[in-house]
Amino acid sequence: MPFTIHGLPVSQGIAIGHVHLVSHAMLEVNHYHVAAKYLPEEVERLNEAVATVQGELVGLKAAATAGQPHSEVGAFVDLQLMMLGDPMLVEAARVLISERRCNAEWALVQQMELVVEQFDQIEDPYLRERKADVVQVVERIVKVLLGHPGHLPPKRRDGLGTIIVAHDLSPADTIGFRDHNIGGFVTDVGGPTSHTAIVARSLRIPAVVGLHHIRQLVEEDELLIIDGTRGVVIVAPDERIVEEYRLRRSELELERSKLNRLKDTPATTLDGEDVNLLANIEGPKDLNQVKAVNADGVGLYRTEFLFIGRDALPDEDEQYEAYRTVLKSLPGKPVTIRTFDVGADKALNGVSARFEPNPALGLRAIRYSLAEPQMFKTQLRALLRASVHGKLQIMIPMLAHAHEIDQSLQLIAKAKAELDAEGLKYDPRVEIGGMIEVPAAALALGMFIRRLSFLSIGTNDLIQYTLAIDRSDEAVVHLYDPLHPAVLKLIAGTIQAGARFGLPVSVCGEMAGDPAYTLLLLGMGLRNFSMHPGHILEIKQQVLRADLNELAPRVQRILKMDEQSKVRDAVMRLAN
Amino acid sequence: MPFTIHGLPVSQGIAIGHVHLVSHAMLEVNHYHVAAKYLPEEVERLNEAVATVQGELVGLKAAATAGQPHSEVGAFVDLQLMMLGDPMLVEAARVLISERRCNAEWALVQQMELVVEQFDQIEDPYLRERKADVVQVVERIVKVLLGHPGHLPPKRRDGLGTIIVAHDLSPADTIGFRDHNIGGFVTDVGGPTSHTAIVARSLRIPAVVGLHHIRQLVEEDELLIIDGTRGVVIVAPDERIVEEYRLRRSELELERSKLNRLKDTPATTLDGEDVNLLANIEGPKDLNQVKAVNADGVGLYRTEFLFIGRDALPDEDEQYEAYRTVLKSLPGKPVTIRTFDVGADKALNGVSARFEPNPALGLRAIRYSLAEPQMFKTQLRALLRASVHGKLQIMIPMLAHAHEIDQSLQLIAKAKAELDAEGLKYDPRVEIGGMIEVPAAALALGMFIRRLSFLSIGTNDLIQYTLAIDRSDEAVVHLYDPLHPAVLKLIAGTIQAGARFGLPVSVCGEMAGDPAYTLLLLGMGLRNFSMHPGHILEIKQQVLRADLNELAPRVQRILKMDEQSKVRDAVMRLAN
Repeated sequence: MPFTIHGLPVSQGIAIGHVHLVSHAMLEVNHYHVAAKYLPEEVERLNEAVATVQGELVGLKAAATAGQPHSEVGAFVDLQLMMLGDPMLVEAARVLISERRCNAEWALVQQMELVVEQFDQIEDPYLRERKADVVQVVERIVKVLLGHPGHLPPKRRDGLGTIIVAHDLSPADTIGFRDHNIGGFVTDVGGPTSHTAIVARSLRIPAVVGLHHIRQLVEEDELLIIDGTRGVVIVAPDERIVEEYRLRRSELELERSKLNRLKDTPATTLDGEDVNLLANIEGPKDLNQVKAVNADGVGLYRTEFLFIGRDALPDEDEQYEAYRTVLKSLPGKPVTIRTFDVGADKALNGVSARFEPNPALGLRAIRYSLAEPQMFKTQLRALLRASVHGKLQIMIPMLAHAHEIDQSLQLIAKAKAELDAEGLKYDPRVEIGGMIEVPAAALALGMFIRRLSFLSIGTNDLIQYTLAIDRSDEAVVHLYDPLHPAVLKLIAGTIQAGARFGLPVSVCGEMAGDPAYTLLLLGMGLRNFSMHPGHILEIKQQVLRADLNELAPRVQRILKMDEQSKVRDAVMRLAN
Repeated sequence: MPFTIHGLPVSQGIAIGHVHLVSHAMLEVNHYHVAAKYLPEEVERLNEAVATVQGELVGLKAAATAGQPHSEVGAFVDLQLMMLGDPMLVEAARVLISERRCNAEWALVQQMELVVEQFDQIEDPYLRERKADVVQVVERIVKVLLGHPGHLPPKRRDGLGTIIVAHDLSPADTIGFRDHNIGGFVTDVGGPTSHTAIVARSLRIPAVVGLHHIRQLVEEDELLIIDGTRGVVIVAPDERIVEEYRLRRSELELERSKLNRLKDTPATTLDGEDVNLLANIEGPKDLNQVKAVNADGVGLYRTEFLFIGRDALPDEDEQYEAYRTVLKSLPGKPVTIRTFDVGADKALNGVSARFEPNPALGLRAIRYSLAEPQMFKTQLRALLRASVHGKLQIMIPMLAHAHEIDQSLQLIAKAKAELDAEGLKYDPRVEIGGMIEVPAAALALGMFIRRLSFLSIGTNDLIQYTLAIDRSDEAVVHLYDPLHPAVLKLIAGTIQAGARFGLPVSVCGEMAGDPAYTLLLLGMGLRNFSMHPGHILEIKQQVLRADLNELAPRVQRILKMDEQSKVRDAVMRLAN
């Protein structure tokens, strides 16, 4: 019997595919079927991985207990060894591999979840927490297994994709899915600004979130339809429903292909104003997408993705290569490279993590860079060296104080002096700009305008701090509101100050790539939009329909409103 | 040999006393000497507590392993039992009691710290983290010991107080010291806005922070002088130095007694403007201090202190009693009671804690209250019932959205209707106001002014969010700047909007109680200052010296500056 569940639509489009249930803890583990003849081999893979971990633990115990007066240190390792022998864990996973004809990693994680659920039943909070040890032992095994991958899953014969059904997805989880054939995302929790939603939109994969207990309502491999436009999930649809959604999907694809024809149309408003539509990228891998939509350049290159999830920092030459590749492949177009925004939720391997009670208000972005001046100068040298290969602009994130700019400019001058001394070339005219994403910056623009050559508004963080809302926190995400009058005041004020002093201003947060805000931003005077390349053509469509003479006075009236509900209504009416 | 260490002066005054080293993890454990004849009894106390914990653990194991298929659950408990037998822990603590003639709790915690330090040396991160188990076992024992206190420490014969030397202090730690004879605080870390600093100032206890390795440089019971005005700590001073500081302390006390003569002087500026100097309190216990300085009323009653550190929420009657006591003891004076500001760093026992990645940007204050409407309505009912006993104003914290006010007003109406139906009295004219502490509120004042009867600026949080700085985070506290032009713009804008629309505005954050900012705030137009009662006379002294005709235009010029260094210089010149 088909049935329908309603959730929050967070990424448009229709997906038809088979359920793949994933756990939060171990999302890098994919499920695949193993042909019967390979099953003994798959069990052997698991056995070997367990043996490897056993060896690791024994070695660990020897190393850790040497000269240790505390016998409990050894006992801790013994406990992990004991867990390897828990019949519900490895032994049961072996059975599951054969029964379900599945891969070892997946079987092990399934069992781990069962064990964790049983630990959750324990009344004593200390013992309950020890489920973390179960997870850790399993992680040790999975790590070994992933180093020795088994047989890859066969392509589905019905040509349908996989629909990931999870409680929640983290940024790391969703990045792991990029290279797989994922048709859609469905999660129990999350809102329009959750990581699941952001990644789904950037990958243009339909997603519905906030479905509460969907994981309990569907089964692995079951057929599922997601309508990411209406927020509907249909479980076990019959052939008639599938046919209907196939048709709607074709219609959407047709619209999409119409959009594709806009690729080489200049983004000019009805009254003849040119608008720059730039791309946000994370590295050279995104260049194909940038070229596919013929973006006017790169408005935000997030260099921290060079760093994250690695054990060692990339050296100057490796960075130089990445920056040069991007600059060379976009000749004549501006490329704005942002210096590292690490800290907060973007953990950096290879650099020791400190505990911070509120990482979003802590040592991140330029604060972090200035606290690690050697690392920062290495990046600046790599950027300057790359500058001879294109039209580079350097952008500094999270500025709040004048001295942060002054210190950064001093480091840039120092890097230039070093390059001069070493006879290495750079473009002396490279422009330095800053992100406006802390309320203090948007409220004291004079300090920034005097020192910088361009500004870019990071709406995501600006909204987060202005409203004191962490949008990754499900308990308060409903209070995250890009149309709060305070937010609009800061964005419009920055755009206007830039115009007054002749400083280019762009918006590179999510608002720039959301067609619901295009007319509003155009009416505020914005002419530079930077977004995921996947949104550029849709935004261009909005630009082509806009008449600024008519929009500007209407937006000025909206900026005078100070009731949220009135603002929302008025912004919706802009499209009519 | 005496020697001097320099740190950050965060709370004025001079203290002379004996070192008491405290650990961060277990600050509720005080140190005291045990007379020789009681030492066997003290060791027996420890033995009995250990036996009790052993019994608890054995019972826990039986309960937790019943019907459990996982043998590791029992092994986890065995591990804790094994730790009780670690010779460096309990056994070594027994020796320490006799050798150092100290109490059992303290001896045990000293040993725990040694063991934890050894765990910190372990290379494997998993094993290193297991120090948490050591701490947990010790906590179990200390809990039992605290339930059966031993002999209290004798009064010192030299009449000197105790100087707490710690790595860092948390709010809970410092609250625990309130009822003891503490002369001063000295910590390794922290800045002018750390919790140690705030609590020290509010208790008027001298404090020097940021001394790095002071804990390694001093010994328990050693003589110490703190100069909280200059940021100097003198270790092992000789009699001549002690005499010199005794003299300086007397001078300071003389100045203080001069201040006390201002108690009944009205706070009127040179040009005849009246200023209200109100008190921030945490409960009826602070009333004596409020009366001692003859405050004009209570500008901020932080009701969450009724809740924190308890296992159950206080019911309506208990709350009513607390509110009534405060209202009745200040007849004719305004008493502004703020509804619970729980969440973030103020954990609430009895209500399950959720993990939040950034609690300061999460479910706290009014957001929390609206998520727990029953709890909130109970507080509103208690407040309304108390309103017949004085001049009550109800204040809502952390507002950012109009609908938060609307929902709160609806709940107040509902509480009134209930009281009407039950025939319970309340003052129908009770005014409802809001805190301006989120940048969005200060930027969209119209929404708030239309709905509320008064505003109060919480500068601590307002600065924190405007600058995106967590001031409890040592890595970024140097970026916390009350004189950032953006901060001054928001504060001055709120004061001016209040004046324009006839709405009273107060400041109840730390800036109101810091004499460095009094002239600036007066010049902005502020007439209501609310602060710890200990600061009121000092601020009154500033008010009495102020000439608003001369100040106002100078402050207007400061508000037009947008370079931080210029602002700082100009504010310092206001006092000349």
